Amino acid sequence: MIYFDNSATTKPYKEVLDSFLKVSAGYFGNPSSLHGIGGQAEKLLGQARSQVARLMGVKAAEVIFTSGGTEGNNLALKGAALANRGRGKHIITTQIEHDSVANAARQLEELGFEVTYLPVNKEGFIDTAAVNAAIRDDTILVSVIHTNNEVGTIQPVGEIGQMLKDFPKVLFHVDYVQGAGKLPLDIYGSNIDLCTISGHKFHGLKGTGALFVRDGVKLLPLLSGGGQEGERRNGTENVAGMVAMAKALRMSSERWERNMGLINEIMGTIKSGLAEMPEIIIHTPAENSAPHILNFSVKGFKAEVFIHALEEKGIYVSTTSACSSRKSRPSKTLLAMGVPDGVAESAIRISLSEENTLAEAKAAAGAIRETVKQLGEVMK
Amino acid sequence: MIYFDNSATTKPYKEVLDSFLKVSAGYFGNPSSLHGIGGQAEKLLGQARSQVARLMGVKAAEVIFTSGGTEGNNLALKGAALANRGRGKHIITTQIEHDSVANAARQLEELGFEVTYLPVNKEGFIDTAAVNAAIRDDTILVSVIHTNNEVGTIQPVGEIGQMLKDFPKVLFHVDYVQGAGKLPLDIYGSNIDLCTISGHKFHGLKGTGALFVRDGVKLLPLLSGGGQEGERRNGTENVAGMVAMAKALRMSSERWERNMGLINEIMGTIKSGLAEMPEIIIHTPAENSAPHILNFSVKGFKAEVFIHALEEKGIYVSTTSACSSRKSRPSKTLLAMGVPDGVAESAIRISLSEENTLAEAKAAAGAIRETVKQLGEVMK
Ligand SMILES: Cc1ncc(COP(=O)(O)O)c(C=O)c1O
Ligand SMILES: Cc1ncc(COP(=O)(O)O)c(C=O)c1O
Repeated sequence: MIYFDNSATTKPYKEVLDSFLKVSAGYFGNPSSLHGIGGQAEKLLGQARSQVARLMGVKAAEVIFTSGGTEGNNLALKGAALANRGRGKHIITTQIEHDSVANAARQLEELGFEVTYLPVNKEGFIDTAAVNAAIRDDTILVSVIHTNNEVGTIQPVGEIGQMLKDFPKVLFHVDYVQGAGKLPLDIYGSNIDLCTISGHKFHGLKGTGALFVRDGVKLLPLLSGGGQEGERRNGTENVAGMVAMAKALRMSSERWERNMGLINEIMGTIKSGLAEMPEIIIHTPAENSAPHILNFSVKGFKAEVFIHALEEKGIYVSTTSACSSRKSRPSKTLLAMGVPDGVAESAIRISLSEENTLAEAKAAAGAIRETVKQLGEVMK
Repeated sequence: MIYFDNSATTKPYKEVLDSFLKVSAGYFGNPSSLHGIGGQAEKLLGQARSQVARLMGVKAAEVIFTSGGTEGNNLALKGAALANRGRGKHIITTQIEHDSVANAARQLEELGFEVTYLPVNKEGFIDTAAVNAAIRDDTILVSVIHTNNEVGTIQPVGEIGQMLKDFPKVLFHVDYVQGAGKLPLDIYGSNIDLCTISGHKFHGLKGTGALFVRDGVKLLPLLSGGGQEGERRNGTENVAGMVAMAKALRMSSERWERNMGLINEIMGTIKSGLAEMPEIIIHTPAENSAPHILNFSVKGFKAEVFIHALEEKGIYVSTTSACSSRKSRPSKTLLAMGVPDGVAESAIRISLSEENTLAEAKAAAGAIRETVKQLGEVMK
């Protein structure tokens, strides 16, 4: 089995599962309990928070634990919009956000906010000047994806953040779900106020995540309750899950840094395997894109047909994002890039983990070529 | 160690952890992915949903998986209130709800809703007639806790539900977090529209839960996103956590049913051990209360002092609810029952699991007596 769908989800590291198990069985207390069993759990939770904070380059008190990227994005958008609605009701985001940002923004529209969805150019990038031009007196929040989950473009969040320094009242949220543990991000240096990560994208567990909330930024909690996470994310904490996430982020960060050369070689092997084929159009730009995501279309074949044919050869890839895949709509990122419907419907995403190998890349490139040939013959 | 703080959280069953591990390692796919690895995960998620539904006596399509009781309660209250705000803005709840209901209601007040908080009588029960009397033309939701987490009173939710049949437009939410897996609840027969459970209260994992949402009931999602859980709770599903929760609910339900006699005997042993002591005031009523929760005050001692003294004897109990314990405010349920501040500040909660034994009960009763004597001498 060659698993090339790591942007949908990753396999948890063995060490991460071991930690989860150890904490769940041995330190099962409720961190809010006053006794020692609660105290032990609270201590572990604090250590996990410090570790995540250190890896994100921020203060521990600025890390809020969540149930995943979707919750982080929703808390950032809705929490910030509702807490700051007295100051204005305008939000700026892009046409290429993950559904957890895009649909949060749409719900805010239903609730009386106004949202500007900025377009991208043909290569999939938004323009800092366009963000600047969209800012109004009543703008309270700008939300931009760091690494796009469908095509892998890395947006100029550093530049946008610098520009936003001229607008100290506008909060800046970055969806860093596909970048965390893989690509560096200078949160303070990029003037970011809110930043989302998700455990299961870097070999942690599903149902775990974190949101960076800069000191002093106000959020209305989505989950009200017993006062956990500084009253901003209530509910008994998933202590074992957070310890596991901290470990996953550390391991993943170390491995990506160590293996970056190899990962580039793996991706290069796949790309050059595909480049020779006239049927293939590569959508992921060569510059400013993530090293682990490659989006391409195989002209003339519906993506579903192609990925099932690849699956028969033991290779697991996806049509664009996992969430959109069941809706069988073409990737909105590709459409925003101006890719025609017919080509977007043939789009396939390969997404690597640092656990993949060069041999897998060679096998996959060969299998893709073979599948194009086989399906081409069937179609004749 | 004698752990008598099972209403704060329980220790996961070994079998539950085994299932979690097996699914996390072996079936790590994203249920939304179109390929077979995603399909396997989707199938397991569906099986977990059917199992939880069967145990709750409802249809699988009516079970939404959440990250816990706090999320379930918030989704029920805010989701229902915001989705039905066109029909009215009045909500009825009680003065003895868990903070995840109480603070969700307060946030809805901030957002323009009006909330009636019904009082309880001296024994801690709300009156169905009072709920009836509070209903107005613009009432959209009634939310009542099933088993109170601080004193263990079981509210007459069946009776309230019957009464609410005369008000077909009023939704009925029940916080069943402390009852699930322990006490029967006829969801359909009680005319319930929304019902919250939480995995870690019945030996499942923290960060797992479910919300029953009756067919046709509209909710505005708190977590918008990729379309999971019928668009009402988006985000990549915690498949392993939900499989683990389903198993925990099945095991816990079976064991409680089988061991009910023993649990009553254990609680009886503790109660009769305490009944002999003039310093002790029992707050939990003898009738219509949960078999596993006992709340009592030791006159003249601050609860914190007493529980630390018990902890030195290896016995873990709590001051009222875990969430409130760090705020060191006296239990709001006791205050609502009319217990004087000074007595409420001495309140201690014992909460059993079906894994506790008669020997533990005897030891605990002895230790409590001894502690009263020791602390009494210190005070002299
Ligand atoms: C860019 C991006 N943001 C947010 C999410 C949502 O994260 P989660 O799956 O943890 O809810 C995902 C993945 O699903 C994603 O790729
Ligand atoms: C009655 C009640 N409702 C809701 C909750 C919240 O559930 P969770 O801890 O899963 O967030 C709790 C426990 O904390 C509870 O006792």
